[in-house]
Amino acid sequence: MAGIPIYQTAICPEWIDYNGHLQDAYYALIISKATDALMDRVGLDAAYRARTACTLYTVEMHLHFLQEVKQADTAVVNVRLLGVDQKRMHTAFEIERAGHPEVAATAEVMLLHVHQEAHRVRSAPFPPEVAARLAELAAASARLAAAGPGSRRIELRAQRTAS
Amino acid sequence: MAGIPIYQTAICPEWIDYNGHLQDAYYALIISKATDALMDRVGLDAAYRARTACTLYTVEMHLHFLQEVKQADTAVVNVRLLGVDQKRMHTAFEIERAGHPEVAATAEVMLLHVHQEAHRVRSAPFPPEVAARLAELAAASARLAAAGPGSRRIELRAQRTAS
Repeated sequence: MAGIPIYQTAICPEWIDYNGHLQDAYYALIISKATDALMDRVGLDAAYRARTACTLYTVEMHLHFLQEVKQADTAVVNVRLLGVDQKRMHTAFEIERAGHPEVAATAEVMLLHVHQEAHRVRSAPFPPEVAARLAELAAASARLAAAGPGSRRIELRAQRTAS
Repeated sequence: MAGIPIYQTAICPEWIDYNGHLQDAYYALIISKATDALMDRVGLDAAYRARTACTLYTVEMHLHFLQEVKQADTAVVNVRLLGVDQKRMHTAFEIERAGHPEVAATAEVMLLHVHQEAHRVRSAPFPPEVAARLAELAAASARLAAAGPGSRRIELRAQRTAS
């Protein structure tokens, strides 16, 4: 594993599309659920959210689809925390299929910590205990290599093969 | 509208998450459905897929989340075709909420035309009639401006405001 194990899930039948594999948006749903698991891990769980009215908003998400995921697969997700500041987390996720060596998808996600007031939402700094856990996770992540492509500007590049 | 209208949808109640708005992955699902509508528009519809065993695979997707979408909103999607080659389409989508001027999300998506054989999938050139429609769409798109951010490398940048 190139990252820190954070989440795994079976593939729901309704996530399979007319192409016979996991529809693109459901890779994103698996990443979203892995983000929830990461929030639990660092202390931004449901109790924290209820107590503080603070939560994470997704700002950006960039997915690379590398292998087809089928109904019978189990998706296994690992994570690295690429960067963190007072209010933001820059995360990298990898989706693997249990029993297969290739990475099936990668995703980078930028998350913003916010306070949800009645009629407006404001960004807010992480509390010290969460910031400490994030710093530990960033340090652990720095020792881990990426197993697939990272975020970059999407553009048509010349292809290497003629097939 | 900054792009060509391609799709619109109500927001299903199960797409709303614990933050009280459209969960990130369901923005991606709306983009996925808009891609299906685009496929219908250019001749890559269900009949084409059944006849040829060819379809589009999503290679990359990069989303920017700009505004909260709520249960009562209607999502309106427009599209621009930023580039096309023999087998690939580089598309840009914008999600708006009917009655609101701000763009709620942008997405760039790279799509690959493939032939699904029994045990392998190979990239395949677009047929001439589809290529012609794509060329028309790219030409129409070139006259339209982006209404929000495009794909770029995700990274922690210094923020302009202190709030």
